[in-house]
Amino acid sequence: MKVLILGADGYLGWPTCLYFSQRDHEVIGVDNYFRRNAAIELDCESLIPAANLHQRSKIWEEITGRKIKVHIGDVTNYEFLLSIFREYNPDAVIHYAEQPSAPYSMINRDKAAFTLQNNLISTLNIVYAVKEANPECHIIKIGTMGEYGTPNIDIEEGWLEIEHKGRKDKFLFPRQTGSLYHTTKIQDTDMLWFYVRTWGITVTDLMQGPVYGLSTDECDLDPRLMPFFHYDEIFGTVLNRFVVQAVAGYPLTVYGKGNQTRGFLNLKDTMQCVYLSATQPAERGQLRIFNQLTELFSVNQLANKVKQIGDKLGYNVKVEQIENPRVEKEEHYYNIAYSGLLDLGLKPHYLTDEILESFFAIADNYKNCINRNAFLKGIKWK
Amino acid sequence: MKVLILGADGYLGWPTCLYFSQRDHEVIGVDNYFRRNAAIELDCESLIPAANLHQRSKIWEEITGRKIKVHIGDVTNYEFLLSIFREYNPDAVIHYAEQPSAPYSMINRDKAAFTLQNNLISTLNIVYAVKEANPECHIIKIGTMGEYGTPNIDIEEGWLEIEHKGRKDKFLFPRQTGSLYHTTKIQDTDMLWFYVRTWGITVTDLMQGPVYGLSTDECDLDPRLMPFFHYDEIFGTVLNRFVVQAVAGYPLTVYGKGNQTRGFLNLKDTMQCVYLSATQPAERGQLRIFNQLTELFSVNQLANKVKQIGDKLGYNVKVEQIENPRVEKEEHYYNIAYSGLLDLGLKPHYLTDEILESFFAIADNYKNCINRNAFLKGIKWK
Repeated sequence: MKVLILGADGYLGWPTCLYFSQRDHEVIGVDNYFRRNAAIELDCESLIPAANLHQRSKIWEEITGRKIKVHIGDVTNYEFLLSIFREYNPDAVIHYAEQPSAPYSMINRDKAAFTLQNNLISTLNIVYAVKEANPECHIIKIGTMGEYGTPNIDIEEGWLEIEHKGRKDKFLFPRQTGSLYHTTKIQDTDMLWFYVRTWGITVTDLMQGPVYGLSTDECDLDPRLMPFFHYDEIFGTVLNRFVVQAVAGYPLTVYGKGNQTRGFLNLKDTMQCVYLSATQPAERGQLRIFNQLTELFSVNQLANKVKQIGDKLGYNVKVEQIENPRVEKEEHYYNIAYSGLLDLGLKPHYLTDEILESFFAIADNYKNCINRNAFLKGIKWK
Repeated sequence: MKVLILGADGYLGWPTCLYFSQRDHEVIGVDNYFRRNAAIELDCESLIPAANLHQRSKIWEEITGRKIKVHIGDVTNYEFLLSIFREYNPDAVIHYAEQPSAPYSMINRDKAAFTLQNNLISTLNIVYAVKEANPECHIIKIGTMGEYGTPNIDIEEGWLEIEHKGRKDKFLFPRQTGSLYHTTKIQDTDMLWFYVRTWGITVTDLMQGPVYGLSTDECDLDPRLMPFFHYDEIFGTVLNRFVVQAVAGYPLTVYGKGNQTRGFLNLKDTMQCVYLSATQPAERGQLRIFNQLTELFSVNQLANKVKQIGDKLGYNVKVEQIENPRVEKEEHYYNIAYSGLLDLGLKPHYLTDEILESFFAIADNYKNCINRNAFLKGIKWK
């Protein structure tokens, strides 16, 4: 299979390139280094310095003999994207090329406008490039569980049949988010659904929960192949941040009461989910939606787990409830259907003590590189 | 009241300026002439040439002694928009400054990208300008009934309480549209709803059906005050197009079977609806949604009405069912709640024979200016 990976330099994009490449697929990786540049601008770079995408792909080739083709360019530039589609004619395109941070989207007007424009124009361009170059190309899009927010009803897998005044119809599950970034993901889904109905394109939209971890079988082959390790308020997901805070002797920053519950998954499981989606594609003209998570935790539960393991390893971890910078419910109902990817063959890596300990070991290796100013950047929703 | 009208040059924007001005409100009109320029580019200009916004505002002053302040500029330019908010500190902002055509949004990638970018960045900028300059300013946004599409359940007024597996919650009514343009209106609503919840801004979102007519008490004062009269495939709403086709001896172009049903309203009623919304604002921190229409017609019913009146006036009107360029259901359920604006005091002008006859009279005056090539521009959804 020929797979075009957009956002190939990212936390998920890079390990995805390796995962497909290792399994004998032809991988073309595209990135515009947005994340690297934004992390420099905002002083919250990855804990582990990463070689650029060309260099990393050479390291991969050196170790495995496998080639990943790399193009540096911006997916919001349609001529560029279309030229890539025409050159390679991929069977599947995996779209990670979005501004992925909720806090980033709430910094100011310019960052909000960038998020809107980048995320929606990139998705639109992919739809048009697929239509022009190869309408059979399967679009795999990373959505977010955040699209649903925290409704007071059970969250189904993408769709809901509604009965109203004795009549029925099926709709996208109702969605209301907690940030402008998450709102762009709702907007993406609505736009993809329109073009699926109108043009018969083929889309899998993966409603992913927060991902944690750094280890995949491929990344573990060489330290130079590790993905970005963001642990800051802007680009770091919560568990990654907590582990680094624990190692740094910084209190774990729990927002508000900490009873906010989300669905999490290990980086290894993101790899599986995307791979299973690509190799068992949606039907032609279908918008297929999966809820991509393996287990639920509240923020307090995660903090307690990190404290427990951290204390055992001798870090003397403190947990601190700080004023919530976000506008979100701190107590809410949360019950989610997520059987679709399990049915495709996902074998979850649950958050065991061993996994958490190995994660501490990685962070400890880079202890001296931790920038304590990155934990709290002072971005507030209001 | 001080009212900022964005998109003040348009079919709805200009008569709205006059309507508020005539009622002693201070009106500031802003436009970037997008519509004029697009109509020149696509060879589908208004039937009636219109003086530019500065000139029209001078004509209005000459006739009534009332001033409308005019600024030419682009609402997607945040510095410009914020300077307008700071200069005038309006009590309400009426947002017509969007690319308003479904066919335009389906022409090609560039027009689609323009529609996305223009409509969403303009709405985002208004939200930010309101937050920075005056969080109490009431945002009145023109949405579209097209957001709902044609679901198989009754369409409520913006919201739906859903019961699912024994639990309940209230959500935005499910929406799925028939064009990229309409999709941007869904995206607008989701974005506004996010900022209403997060920042407590105040919004009225008017889900408007297709508007017809050219006459308002103010526009009728002088022929030079008439709004744009678009009758083409791109910017002309269906009834306006049919009347001009009838006058031109061109068959009325019914798309497909013609049983597509929509909710319509007279231009005079758009004025009332927007005015009632402004003078009886939403509550602080509320997203208030009204369905803005006064009666339902299928396309066939409209064509038959136009034929009946046209034949009576001696035009010998033909009706032709042409291949539907759009992707839409030609037979569907359609039952809509629209009591909110009636409760505020709307007095509908229904589509009577007299109104239709007077509409024919206007079109007949400009018979020699009709560009028959504008009726069908060949834009297809697929």
